[in-house]
Amino acid sequence: MARLIESLATTEALAEVFSDTSIVQAMLDFEVALARAEARAGIVPKSATDRIAAAAHASEFDVPALSRGMFRAGTLSIPLVKALTEKVKAEDVDAAGWVHWGATSQDVADTALVLLLKRTRTIISRDLKRLEKALSALSGKHKKTVMLGRTLMQAAPPVTFGLKVAGWLGAVKRSSRHAESAFEEAQILQFGGASGTLAFLREKGSVVAHGLAKELGLRCPEAPWHTHRDRLANLVCSCGVLTGSLGKMARDISLLMQTEVAEAAEPGGEGRGGSSTMPHKRNPIACALTLAAAERVPGLVAGFLSAMVQEHERAVGGWQSEWPTIASIVQATGTAAASMAEVAEGLSVDPARMRENIASTKGQMFAERTIMLLAAELGRDAAHKLLENALQKAAAQKKSLSTVLAELPEFSSRLSRAELDKLEVPELYLGSAEVFREALVKKEGK
Amino acid sequence: MARLIESLATTEALAEVFSDTSIVQAMLDFEVALARAEARAGIVPKSATDRIAAAAHASEFDVPALSRGMFRAGTLSIPLVKALTEKVKAEDVDAAGWVHWGATSQDVADTALVLLLKRTRTIISRDLKRLEKALSALSGKHKKTVMLGRTLMQAAPPVTFGLKVAGWLGAVKRSSRHAESAFEEAQILQFGGASGTLAFLREKGSVVAHGLAKELGLRCPEAPWHTHRDRLANLVCSCGVLTGSLGKMARDISLLMQTEVAEAAEPGGEGRGGSSTMPHKRNPIACALTLAAAERVPGLVAGFLSAMVQEHERAVGGWQSEWPTIASIVQATGTAAASMAEVAEGLSVDPARMRENIASTKGQMFAERTIMLLAAELGRDAAHKLLENALQKAAAQKKSLSTVLAELPEFSSRLSRAELDKLEVPELYLGSAEVFREALVKKEGK
Amino acid sequence: MARLIESLATTEALAEVFSDTSIVQAMLDFEVALARAEARAGIVPKSATDRIAAAAHASEFDVPALSRGMFRAGTLSIPLVKALTEKVKAEDVDAAGWVHWGATSQDVADTALVLLLKRTRTIISRDLKRLEKALSALSGKHKKTVMLGRTLMQAAPPVTFGLKVAGWLGAVKRSSRHAESAFEEAQILQFGGASGTLAFLREKGSVVAHGLAKELGLRCPEAPWHTHRDRLANLVCSCGVLTGSLGKMARDISLLMQTEVAEAAEPGGEGRGGSSTMPHKRNPIACALTLAAAERVPGLVAGFLSAMVQEHERAVGGWQSEWPTIASIVQATGTAAASMAEVAEGLSVDPARMRENIASTKGQMFAERTIMLLAAELGRDAAHKLLENALQKAAAQKKSLSTVLAELPEFSSRLSRAELDKLEVPELYLGSAEVFREALVKKEGK
Amino acid sequence: MARLIESLATTEALAEVFSDTSIVQAMLDFEVALARAEARAGIVPKSATDRIAAAAHASEFDVPALSRGMFRAGTLSIPLVKALTEKVKAEDVDAAGWVHWGATSQDVADTALVLLLKRTRTIISRDLKRLEKALSALSGKHKKTVMLGRTLMQAAPPVTFGLKVAGWLGAVKRSSRHAESAFEEAQILQFGGASGTLAFLREKGSVVAHGLAKELGLRCPEAPWHTHRDRLANLVCSCGVLTGSLGKMARDISLLMQTEVAEAAEPGGEGRGGSSTMPHKRNPIACALTLAAAERVPGLVAGFLSAMVQEHERAVGGWQSEWPTIASIVQATGTAAASMAEVAEGLSVDPARMRENIASTKGQMFAERTIMLLAAELGRDAAHKLLENALQKAAAQKKSLSTVLAELPEFSSRLSRAELDKLEVPELYLGSAEVFREALVKKEGK
Repeated sequence: MARLIESLATTEALAEVFSDTSIVQAMLDFEVALARAEARAGIVPKSATDRIAAAAHASEFDVPALSRGMFRAGTLSIPLVKALTEKVKAEDVDAAGWVHWGATSQDVADTALVLLLKRTRTIISRDLKRLEKALSALSGKHKKTVMLGRTLMQAAPPVTFGLKVAGWLGAVKRSSRHAESAFEEAQILQFGGASGTLAFLREKGSVVAHGLAKELGLRCPEAPWHTHRDRLANLVCSCGVLTGSLGKMARDISLLMQTEVAEAAEPGGEGRGGSSTMPHKRNPIACALTLAAAERVPGLVAGFLSAMVQEHERAVGGWQSEWPTIASIVQATGTAAASMAEVAEGLSVDPARMRENIASTKGQMFAERTIMLLAAELGRDAAHKLLENALQKAAAQKKSLSTVLAELPEFSSRLSRAELDKLEVPELYLGSAEVFREALVKKEGK
Repeated sequence: MARLIESLATTEALAEVFSDTSIVQAMLDFEVALARAEARAGIVPKSATDRIAAAAHASEFDVPALSRGMFRAGTLSIPLVKALTEKVKAEDVDAAGWVHWGATSQDVADTALVLLLKRTRTIISRDLKRLEKALSALSGKHKKTVMLGRTLMQAAPPVTFGLKVAGWLGAVKRSSRHAESAFEEAQILQFGGASGTLAFLREKGSVVAHGLAKELGLRCPEAPWHTHRDRLANLVCSCGVLTGSLGKMARDISLLMQTEVAEAAEPGGEGRGGSSTMPHKRNPIACALTLAAAERVPGLVAGFLSAMVQEHERAVGGWQSEWPTIASIVQATGTAAASMAEVAEGLSVDPARMRENIASTKGQMFAERTIMLLAAELGRDAAHKLLENALQKAAAQKKSLSTVLAELPEFSSRLSRAELDKLEVPELYLGSAEVFREALVKKEGK
Repeated sequence: MARLIESLATTEALAEVFSDTSIVQAMLDFEVALARAEARAGIVPKSATDRIAAAAHASEFDVPALSRGMFRAGTLSIPLVKALTEKVKAEDVDAAGWVHWGATSQDVADTALVLLLKRTRTIISRDLKRLEKALSALSGKHKKTVMLGRTLMQAAPPVTFGLKVAGWLGAVKRSSRHAESAFEEAQILQFGGASGTLAFLREKGSVVAHGLAKELGLRCPEAPWHTHRDRLANLVCSCGVLTGSLGKMARDISLLMQTEVAEAAEPGGEGRGGSSTMPHKRNPIACALTLAAAERVPGLVAGFLSAMVQEHERAVGGWQSEWPTIASIVQATGTAAASMAEVAEGLSVDPARMRENIASTKGQMFAERTIMLLAAELGRDAAHKLLENALQKAAAQKKSLSTVLAELPEFSSRLSRAELDKLEVPELYLGSAEVFREALVKKEGK
Repeated sequence: MARLIESLATTEALAEVFSDTSIVQAMLDFEVALARAEARAGIVPKSATDRIAAAAHASEFDVPALSRGMFRAGTLSIPLVKALTEKVKAEDVDAAGWVHWGATSQDVADTALVLLLKRTRTIISRDLKRLEKALSALSGKHKKTVMLGRTLMQAAPPVTFGLKVAGWLGAVKRSSRHAESAFEEAQILQFGGASGTLAFLREKGSVVAHGLAKELGLRCPEAPWHTHRDRLANLVCSCGVLTGSLGKMARDISLLMQTEVAEAAEPGGEGRGGSSTMPHKRNPIACALTLAAAERVPGLVAGFLSAMVQEHERAVGGWQSEWPTIASIVQATGTAAASMAEVAEGLSVDPARMRENIASTKGQMFAERTIMLLAAELGRDAAHKLLENALQKAAAQKKSLSTVLAELPEFSSRLSRAELDKLEVPELYLGSAEVFREALVKKEGK
C-alpha cells in the first residue's frame, strides 16, 4: 500500500519497522542465526555459516522480484531463501547447500514477524510511557479544576478535570500493562520444520531450537505453533483494547475542543490543525488520527481472530492473511499512542471557560444536590416533587436555581441562606472525586 | 505498508492503482479539472489554468515530504495543494492564487479516491469476466461428470461437477452484478467547499460542479456527500459479498485438492505451489490467497461501516480512517478475482478419481434412493426400518449396499435385479441437477 | 437471549417476528406448502396433505424440547420434522410417511428464515417511509433556518438546517432503496433435497419447486443455494449501510442536543429521556439506541460475511452460525429506523439558538467570505495575509470580525460600509445550499 | 431473541445465566446490597433495608413491562428501580425513599452484568477443565499413533496424533489462562453516582463502595469506570482468542471426519449427528457448533471494541450497545468449550486408518527424508535433483518411493537395503514430536 494511503495510519518509525528492507533483514537474521545454531550443534560447517552471514544483507536483495515471487509462492520465504541460496552459491557451492537447513517457510516468516513485533513494542512502549507521565502531571495540575460532568452529553453534576484525566490514565495504564504482557508472550521463536517435528534434524531438533532462540534473543516455546496463533491473537487484541482506551480519550478531547465548548485544545504545532483563515482555531487532528485508529482496529482484530481457525500443520488462507492485518493493527495502535502522547504533553486547558460552562447551566445541574439537602427532612419523593416546580420556574424565567429557591417559601424555610449561597458552588459537590483521582494516579496499572 | 507485507494481498495492477504517484496524479487531475471548469464559468483566468496544468505532474512531487505533511495536517490535500501552489507560484504568482479555488480538502481527496476506484473497477471487471467465461465452459464440459455430494463434509447422494461449478458461477455472476452497480454509483464527484454549500463560488457553484464532473468523467451528485458515505459503503460491501463468494469456491477447490480426495488441482504454473521434493504435488496457493482475502475483508468492511457515523459537515476520525480500509478491500477483492480466474482457466479435474471416491463409499450414499424405490409400496417409515439392518450389514461386511440388498429376501423380493443393478449408478440419481445447472449458466446474474 | 438483554436492540414488532412461535410456524408453513405442491404434482395423496395441515399449529409444539433437540441435531428442522411427523402419525400413520417428502433440513430452515425476513421487510419499510416523509417535511420547513456549519466539530461557514436534514434524507433514501432491493432478491425459495439435486423427486423436482414457491409467495430461484449465501449477505450488508446512515443522523442530533449547543431535541415522550431532577432536559435516548445499533451492526455484518465460505453442498459451521447474526442485524436496523422516524416526526428545533451560536463566533467563520470579497482585487494570498492580522485582533479584543475590519483602513478602504454590514449575515453566504437541498429532497433515492 | 434462534449459539446453562429472571435478580441483589452497605455506613435506616430486601424477588416483577420501559428509558435500571420502589412503597412509604440511594442507573446495570459474568465464568471454567483433562489423556494415549502431517491440506511428513492433540491442548491452556485472568479482573463493582464522584454520598462514598463490593463478593476498583470499558473489552477479547483456539481444534476434527479421511469421529450420542439412512455415519455437529461460534465471535468482539469510544461520564450509544454483544460472546464461547469437551471425551480415533492414509501416499511424503540421508554425501542440491526423477517414476508407475529407489542404481548404491526398508516407516521420521508433545502436556498454560 502506498505510503500516502497509509500516512494517517502509521508513524514514520512504525512504517520503517515494517519496511521492505526491515522485513527482508529480519528473515535473513533468522537464516544466519539458524546456521550458527546448527554449526554449534555440529550440523552445519562453520565455513558455510560465515558464507551465509556474508550474503545476508537486505539492501542487496531485489524487492520487486521478491514481491512477485512471494505472490506466486504464497509466502516470502520461498523466493527469499532461493535468492539467498543463489547469493551464497555464487561464492561457495557447498555452503549454499546448508542455507535454511531443516527449516520450513513458516519458520522464517513467523520468526521474522516476531522480530519486527519486538521492535514495534519498544516504540509503542516509549510513547505510552510519555503519555502516562504527561497524564499523571496533567491530572495533578488540575485536581481542583472543576468542570461540568456530562452524561449522554447532557450537563450533570460537576467533576474535576483532574479526575477526567485520571480516568484516561487508569485505562491507559491497564491497557498498556496488558499490551506489554501480550507482546512479551509473543516474543517467541517459530521453528518446527516441514510438519512441526523437526524430523529433518533427527534427535538434534530441540538443541538447535534453543540455540536459535538464544541467538535471536527470543524465548523458545515448548513446541512449534504454526497453526496455533493464540499468542499473536492476544497481542492484536491487547492493541485493540489499548486503541479503544486511547479513542475514548480522543473522543472526550475532541468534544471539549468544540467551538461551543472550548474547554481544551490540542497543542497544534507545525503543520497541524491550524487554519489560515481562522488563525485562533485548532482542528483536533491528533484526536482525529486516534479516532481513525479506533474505527479501523476493531475490524482488523476481527479479521485476525477469524483467521485463527487454521488447518492441521499449515493453514490454507488463515496464515496467509495475517501480515497486513497485524502490521495495520500495531501501526494504528502506535499512531494513536504517539498522537495522544503529543496531545497530553501539550494540551491547552481553559479552567475559566470550564467554570463559565457550569455557570451557564444556571444551577440546574445542582438539582440533585438540593434533593440531597432536603431528603433527610422530607423524604426523597416529596423533595423531588417540590423541586420540579422550582426547576420549571427557573428554566422559564432564565434564573438560576438558587435564586428561584430563595424566592420560594417552601425552600427558603428549609434551606438556610448559607446553604442556598453554597448550592451552586461546584467545589462543594465533588464527593469522592479526589479520592478516586488519587487512587487512579497511584495505581500500578491493574 | 511495505510491498512485501501486502504482496499476498494485492495484484501488481491494483498495487499500482494505489501507488503514491497514482494518488498524487489523481489529486492533481482534480485541481486541473477544477481550474478548467472554473475558467469556463468565467471565474478563473484561462492563463492561470494553463499554469496549473503545467505544474500538475505527479512525478515532480516529493512523496516523503507530502507524507509527513499529511500526517500533520490530517489529510493529503493540505500539503499537496500547498506544494502545487508553490510550483505554480514559481512560474506565475497570480496563477497561484487560483489553485484549488473554492474547493475544500475533502473535495480533492474524495474525488481522487473515486478516480482511483474507477480504475480499480476496470481491472476487477476484466478478471471477473475471465472467471465467468472459464466457469461457464468448465461447467458445460463437466455436465455429466458425477461426483460425491458432500454435506457437512460427509458423503451424500451424487452431484455433477458441472452443477458444482455452475453454483460457483451463479454466485459470482450475482455478486459481480452488484459490485458493478455499486462501483457505478460511486463514480461521482465530490465538490462542496468548506461547509458543503459552495458558498465561495456564490451562485456559480452548481455550474462549476457540473463542469468539473464532466471534465473528470464522473457523475455529478445532487449535493456534496462529505459525511454521507453510503455509496462507498455499498461499494465495499459489494466487495465483501463478492470475496465471500470467491472464498466459497476456493474452499471447495482446496478441499477437492486434499491428498485424500484428489479430484481437482489448481493449474500451478511458474513459482506456484510446486514442491521440489514432491514434484507431482500442487499446493492450493491461489485458493490460499483467495481464502486469505475472505478472512480479511469482512473485518475491513466492518471498519468501513462503523466509520460511517460521521459528524456534521466534516468528520473527526471517521473520514480519516477510510483510505487504508477501502484500498485494502478492493485490492483483496481483486486478488481473489484474479486468483480464481487463473484457477478456473487452468483447473485440472480428475473424473476417474471422482468416480472412485463414489465407489469407495460402497453405495451407502444410495440408501436414500432405496427408500424412494420402496416407499411407494411400504411407506417411508417401514422402508427405513428395513434398510437400517441392511446398511449395518453392508458396513460390517465391507460389502456394497446393493450386494447386501440382493442377498436379503425382503429386498430381493421387492426390487428387481435390474433395479438393484442400477441402484448405485450415480448417473441415475441426479434428479434435476442438469436443469439447475443450465438455469445457472444461462441466468444473467440476477 | 433474554428479552431484557436485547430490549434496547429490537422493537417489539421485530422481536415478535423472530419469536419461537413465529419461527416454528414459518417452518410448519413450509411443510404444509410442500405437501400441497407435491399433491398437485401427483406425488403426495391429498388426504395426507390435509392431515399435515391439521397438525401444523405452532402453538401445539413444545419449544423447550425443540430447543434441546436443535442443539443436539445442529438444526431445528430435525426435531421439528420429527415432532410434526409424530403429531400426524397420531392421527394417520400413512399420512405421516409423507411429511417433509423429498426435502432436506436446510430447505425448511432457510425457507422459514426467508419468510420471516419478508415480514421484517414490511415492518422496516413502513418505518423508513415514515422517516422519509418526516425528514422531507422538516427539511422544507427549515430551508431558511441558518446554523453553523461544523467541520471537525469546529465552526465553519453557515449551512441551513434544511440542508442538513436533506443530507440525512438523501442517505436514507439511497440506503432504503438498496435495502428494499436486497430484501426483494432474498425473497426466494430454498428447495434442493439432500445434495441440492432434488433427486428424491426424480424428474418432478422442478415442478414441485415452482409450485412450492407459488404456494409460499416466494420467487423460485434457478437452483438451490444451500451454500451460496450471497443474497442473504447482500441483505445484511444493505442493513449495515442503512444503519450507518441512520447512525450519522443520530450522531448529528445528539451533538445538537448537547447542553452547550442546544439547537435541537428529541421528542421525548412517555418514559423517554426525561429526568425528574432536571425536568426541562431530554436525554438523546432514541439517538443512543440508533448509535448502539450502528456500533453493533458492522461486526455482525463481518460475522455474516466471513461465514459465507461454506463447504461443498452443506456447510460445517458457516450455515449454523447465521440465524442469530441475521436476526440481530435486521432487528437492530429496524430499531434504528423506528427510532429515527420517531425523532424526525417530533424533533424540536430552536432556530433562535442556532442564530445565537453563529453570533457567538463573532464572525470568525466569515473570514473565508472576506477573502472571497478581496481576492479579486488583491489576489488570494495577499488577502489572506491582510486578514490574519485582523482575525487575531478580533480574537484578542473579543470583537466581531466586521467591527475590526471597519476599524482597519486597509479593509475599510476596500470594502464598502454595506459590504461590511452584510459580511456576517449568514443568509448571504449560503451559496448553493438551497439548490442542493431541493435536489436531495426531490431525488428518488438513486 | 427467541430461544430457537439462538439454540445453536448457547448451552442451556448459559442461556439460564442471561435469562430475564437472572438479570432482574442480579439488579435486585445490587439494590439490596447497596441498602445494606449504606445502612452499615449510617445512611439508610436498617428497617428500610429489610423492606427493600423483602421486595427484591425477581419472580414478582413484570418482565414485559420492564422490557417496554427499558426500550423507552434506554436502560433497564430506570423501570426496574421504579418498580422496586413501588413495591417497597406499597409496604412502607418511608423505606421507598431509600431505594437506589446515591446510585445511578449505570451502577446497577453494570454491576448486575458483572455478577452474571461471574456465574458465566464458573460454567465455562468447568468445561475447559473437562476439555483439558480429556485432551491430556487423549494425547498420552496416542503418543505413538502415527498419522500424516498435512500442510496446506497436502500430505507432509508424519506426525503423531498425540502431538496434534497436545497442540490443541497447549492453545486451550494458554487461552484459558488468559480468559480466567480477564474474568477475574472484570469481577469488579461499578458504583459512582450521577457523574462518577458519588457526590450524593458526600464524604461517605468510598466507605459505601467498599462495603457494597464486599457484600456482593466483588473487588472494589480505584474509581468508577462508567466510560472506561477496557476490563470488559479484555474479557471479550480473551473469549475471542479462546473461541479461535477451539475453532482450530474443531476444524481439524471435522477434516479428519471427512468420508475420504475417516481417521476420527465425534462421539455422537443422543440426537446428535446420526443419519437414519446412513447409520454408520456421524455428522460433525459439535464441531459445527464450535466453528459457528468461531465465525460469529470475531465480529462481536469488533462490535465491543468499537463501542469503547464512550463520551465523557456516560456514553450515547456505546454503553447501550454492550449487553447483547457481551452475552452473545460468552454464550458462544461457552458453547464451543462445552462442545469440544464433549468431543474430546468421546472422540473415536482410528489408528489403522491413519496408517492406511500414510501408506496410500506411496512414500512420496518421505522424499524429504531421502534428501536428509543423501545430503551428507552429495549435498542437498544434488540429492534433490537425483530424487526428482525417482519421484516422477514412482508417481507414474504408482509404485512406492522406496521400491523405485531400490530399482535405481544411483540410490541403491548409496542407501543400504536396511535404509531403504526403513525409509517409509513413519515412526522413524518423527524427530522431536514426542519431546514437543510432552512439553505441551506438562506446561502450565503459559
